[in-house]
Amino acid sequence: GWARAVRGLLLDVSGVLYDSGADGGVPIAGSAEAVRRIKASGLKLRLCTNETQATRENFVKKLRGMGFDVSVAEVTAPAPAACHILKERGLRPHLLVHDDLVPEFAEIDKTNPNCVVLGDAAENFTYANLNEAFRLLIGMEKPVLLSLGRGRYYKETDGLKLDVGAYMKALEYACDVQAEVVGKPSKRFFESALAEMGVPPEQAIMIGDDIVNDVGGAQRCGMRALQVRTGKYRPSDENHPEVKPDAYVNNLAEAVDIILQQL
Amino acid sequence: GWARAVRGLLLDVSGVLYDSGADGGVPIAGSAEAVRRIKASGLKLRLCTNETQATRENFVKKLRGMGFDVSVAEVTAPAPAACHILKERGLRPHLLVHDDLVPEFAEIDKTNPNCVVLGDAAENFTYANLNEAFRLLIGMEKPVLLSLGRGRYYKETDGLKLDVGAYMKALEYACDVQAEVVGKPSKRFFESALAEMGVPPEQAIMIGDDIVNDVGGAQRCGMRALQVRTGKYRPSDENHPEVKPDAYVNNLAEAVDIILQQL
Repeated sequence: GWARAVRGLLLDVSGVLYDSGADGGVPIAGSAEAVRRIKASGLKLRLCTNETQATRENFVKKLRGMGFDVSVAEVTAPAPAACHILKERGLRPHLLVHDDLVPEFAEIDKTNPNCVVLGDAAENFTYANLNEAFRLLIGMEKPVLLSLGRGRYYKETDGLKLDVGAYMKALEYACDVQAEVVGKPSKRFFESALAEMGVPPEQAIMIGDDIVNDVGGAQRCGMRALQVRTGKYRPSDENHPEVKPDAYVNNLAEAVDIILQQL
Repeated sequence: GWARAVRGLLLDVSGVLYDSGADGGVPIAGSAEAVRRIKASGLKLRLCTNETQATRENFVKKLRGMGFDVSVAEVTAPAPAACHILKERGLRPHLLVHDDLVPEFAEIDKTNPNCVVLGDAAENFTYANLNEAFRLLIGMEKPVLLSLGRGRYYKETDGLKLDVGAYMKALEYACDVQAEVVGKPSKRFFESALAEMGVPPEQAIMIGDDIVNDVGGAQRCGMRALQVRTGKYRPSDENHPEVKPDAYVNNLAEAVDIILQQL
C-alpha cells in the first residue's frame, strides 16, 4: 500500500494540526499525540507550511501552547525562502504582509523597492495598501511580484477567509504580470523541505488538507501525498479533475496509525 | 478617412471629459466646449461610461457643475444595465459597490441573495467586505458574479487606483467562477447604448482613453473607435498587441474638430 518504505513525513499545519482562528486556534483531536508518536517512531518530521501571519518563532510558540512538541528548526515556511531569493537576486522588497511577519525580513534592505512581496496580510489587505503595492509594481520597468503562496481561501473558526492567492490574482491582472510563488505548491519549496530532512521524495509522504497546494504540489515532486478530511477539506475535493491523493484519511491520527503499523 | 459618414458619438467620460479625483475632478481643457459643439452640429451624443461610484443623477450633476451640457437621459451606465439583468433572471443581489451607487438598486429585492454584484466599491473594498462577498459566492450551489466592468485601474488626481476588474479576478479565482461583465467592453452594453441613440454601429464612433474596454470593445461591435491621449492613456498603449484604434487624437476637442470638418 501507500504507507510502505517511509522515512519522513511532511505535515501541513493549519487544518491538519489545528483549526486556526482569530483567537488563536483549536487543536484537531489526536494531532498532538500523533506528532509525539511520529517522533518516538524515529521517522523524520517536517512542518511544511504556507503560514505567513507570524514569524516561525511565534508560530512554534503558538503550536507548543496547544500541546505540539515541535521546534523552529523543524519548520519550512515561505518568508525565509523568500529572503533567500531576495538576497540571491539583489531584490529590495516592498512588503504587503501581516504585521507579525515583518521581523522575518529584518535583515533585508527595503529602501527604494524594486519588487513587491505579498503574503497573507489579513487586516492589512486594505484598499489603500493594495493601491500602494499596485502603484509600485505598475511603476517598475519590469514588475517583480513574489507571492508567499497561492491559496484561494482558508478556514478560520469564524468562517472562510480569502487567502493570498486571491490578492495575487488581483495584482497580476492589474499589472499584467505573473507572480513568482514562494511556498507550496512551488517545487523549489518542497525540495528545500526534503533537503532539510535529508530524505528523498520517494521515501517521504506529505499530509495536508489542501488538494492542490499540499497534495498536488508534493506529488509533482515525486512524493506520496494524503489528504486529511479536516480543515478546509470539502467532499467535492474527492472529485478533483486533476489531483488524486495516494489516500484519504479522516485525520492526522489515522494517517499515523496506518503508517506506524507498516514500519 | 475615419471621420466619414458619422451620425453619432459615444463618449467615455472619466479621462475624456474630466480627470477624476477624490475631490471631484478637473475638466480636461476644451472638452466642455467640444460637447457643446457636438450638440450644435446635430450629431447624436451618448455618454457610455463604466462609472459606478455614483447614481446617474449625481454623476450628471457633477458633470454639469464642471460645465458640461449633459443630461441623465444621455447616460448609458452599468448599474441600470445590471438591474435589467437581475429582473430578467430573478436574481437577488448582494451588493459590493460604492455607497453612492446603492440607490440605483432601490427597486431590486436584495433579501436572501443568490448572486453578488461587484462595482468599483473604492473605500468599501475592505478585507471584511471582500470576505463577506466571497463567503456568499462559495456558499452558492452555482455562484453568480455580475461585475460592473472589468477595468484594471484608473487614474485619479492623487494617483492610479485598482479598478473593479482586479477585485473581480480575486473573487473569480477564490470561487473558481467566471464573472459576467456588465458595462464596457460587453457587446450587449454597447448595443444598448447604440439602440438608445438610434444609430447603427457603422455610423457611430466611440471615443475613449481605455485601449481595451473603450476601443477594443466598440470595434468588436462594428463601430469605429478613437483613443484620446488623455486620462489613463499611456504611450505603450500604441503598441498594444491586440487592439489598434481607427485613430489617435490628443484629446476630445481635437477629435471633434476633425469630425465636424467632415460633416
